[in-house]
Amino acid sequence: MEETESETNSETEPTLCCLSCEEHYARRDAGTCKECYEEASETEEELKREIKDLKAKIKFLSFWSPTDHDHDHDHDSSGRSHGSGFTDIVLVAVEDGPDGGPSVPVPAHRAVLANRSPVFEAMLKNEMEESRSGTIKISDVSYDALRAFVNYLYSAEALLDEQMACELLVLAEKYQVKHLKAYCEKFLVSKLNWDNSIVNYAFAHQHNAKLLLEAALSLILDNMDKLRKRQEYSEFIEKHPTLVVEILEACLKKQENTAAPKDTSAKS
Amino acid sequence: MEETESETNSETEPTLCCLSCEEHYARRDAGTCKECYEEASETEEELKREIKDLKAKIKFLSFWSPTDHDHDHDHDSSGRSHGSGFTDIVLVAVEDGPDGGPSVPVPAHRAVLANRSPVFEAMLKNEMEESRSGTIKISDVSYDALRAFVNYLYSAEALLDEQMACELLVLAEKYQVKHLKAYCEKFLVSKLNWDNSIVNYAFAHQHNAKLLLEAALSLILDNMDKLRKRQEYSEFIEKHPTLVVEILEACLKKQENTAAPKDTSAKS
Repeated sequence: MEETESETNSETEPTLCCLSCEEHYARRDAGTCKECYEEASETEEELKREIKDLKAKIKFLSFWSPTDHDHDHDHDSSGRSHGSGFTDIVLVAVEDGPDGGPSVPVPAHRAVLANRSPVFEAMLKNEMEESRSGTIKISDVSYDALRAFVNYLYSAEALLDEQMACELLVLAEKYQVKHLKAYCEKFLVSKLNWDNSIVNYAFAHQHNAKLLLEAALSLILDNMDKLRKRQEYSEFIEKHPTLVVEILEACLKKQENTAAPKDTSAKS
Repeated sequence: MEETESETNSETEPTLCCLSCEEHYARRDAGTCKECYEEASETEEELKREIKDLKAKIKFLSFWSPTDHDHDHDHDSSGRSHGSGFTDIVLVAVEDGPDGGPSVPVPAHRAVLANRSPVFEAMLKNEMEESRSGTIKISDVSYDALRAFVNYLYSAEALLDEQMACELLVLAEKYQVKHLKAYCEKFLVSKLNWDNSIVNYAFAHQHNAKLLLEAALSLILDNMDKLRKRQEYSEFIEKHPTLVVEILEACLKKQENTAAPKDTSAKS
C-alpha cells in the first residue's frame, strides 16, 4: 500500500492499485480513471437489474406448453398454473408417431398459434379445412419436433441438438415463426465446422437461412483448397451443381478482392 | 501524450490517460488496470446482447391485447398478427361503463386468464357460473382499469399514472397476478413523497403491498415531527387508529435503536 501511495523518485517506478481486482499494476498497464470505473460499475449493475426484470417478464408471459401433460394440475413457484386446458385445436405429425406408432395429437390454442404464426393465422381465420375440423396435419416432421415446435410457441424455449435445430428451422420457415428460425440458425452457426459446412450450406440454401448460409460459405471459402480433395465434393457437384457454381464464384470474387494489382498484370 | 508516456522525475507528476474517457488523470484518481477495463467492457457488451435477446423474446411472447380493436387485422413489423380473435370469454366492469354508460365487455381467452391468475384458473376450470355464462363480472373497477388489466395479462405492459397504478394493484391483489402487483408497487414507490405517504401507507396496508408499505413507513418515520402537525393526522387517527399505533410503535423502536445508551440513562 505504501508503495502505491508514495511519490518517491525511487528507481523502481511506484505501482498503482486496481480498484476492481485489487492487484498492483504498472503505469503502462493502466486502464481507466476512477470516475469511469465507478460509472461502468453502475452501468453494469443497472444492466443486471434490467436483465432480472426482463426475465421475470418472460416468466410471466410464458405459457407452459399444453404438451406438458405431467404438470396438468401443478403450479409453479409463482403460484401460476401451467396453462394447460381450454385447448381448441390439435396438431398432428402426419407420418410419424412416437415409436413409429400412430401420431399422438399435440393440443394447442388457436389464439396462440395465430398470434405466433401468420400462416396459422390465415389458416384458422379463414375457416379452412383445419379450422373446421380442429386438426392441423403437419407433414415431414417427427412427433418430437412437433411437440418441441408447439412448446416453443408457448415458451420461446427449446432444447436443441443439431437434428432438432434442423427440424425446427424447417417448421419455423414453413409457418413463418421468425423468432424460432433465428434461434435455430444461431445454434447451427455455433455448431459449424469444416466437416458439416457443406451439408449446412446446402440446408441453409434450401430453407432460406441467410445467417447460416453466410457462415457456412465463409468457412468453405477459407478451406477451398481442402474442399476439392474431399470425397463428397463430386457427389455434391452432382446433387447441387448450382450451389457449387455459387461457391466457386464467391471464391473467385474473394481472390480478386484480395489479390494485389501487380499479381494480376503478371499473370495476364 | 508525451507527458503520459514519460518517466521523468520532473516536479509535476506525469498524468495517466484513461482508456475510457480519454482524459488525463492523476495517480490518486486511478481506477482499474487495463485487464479489468477490457474485461468490464466485454461484460457490458455481453449484457447488452443478452438484453437485446430477452427483449426479442418478450416481443415474441406478447399478445396484443384483444381490447386493441383498431388493429384487428393488422400485422406488426415482424409479420405477426395482433392476436385478436378466438376469444372465448368476456370481462365486464359491473358498475362503470365508459362515459358512465353501460360497460363494454372486454374480450379475452380463458387459457390466458387461467395461465396468468390462479383465481381465474379456479373460476374457469371448476365450471363456476362465470365459466358457464362466458362472462366474468368485476366489481369496483373502472372500464379503463379493466382494459388495462386485461391488456397487461397479454403484454406485461401498462401505462401508469398514480390512479391507474392503484386500481391495477387492487385487481392484481384480488386475482393474484403477482407480476402486475410488483409492477404497480414499484411505480407507486417511485412516486412516494411526504404529501402522499400517509395515504399510500393506508392503501398499502389494505392491499397487502409490503414494498410500498415499507417505503411509505420509512418516509413517515423520517418526518415524524412534521406528521403530528398535519391537519389530516387527527382524521387519520380516527379512520385508521391501528395503523397509527403501528407507525408510532415503529417510531419508538427506531428511536430505541438509534439512541445511545448514555442518553437513555440520562433521561431516566
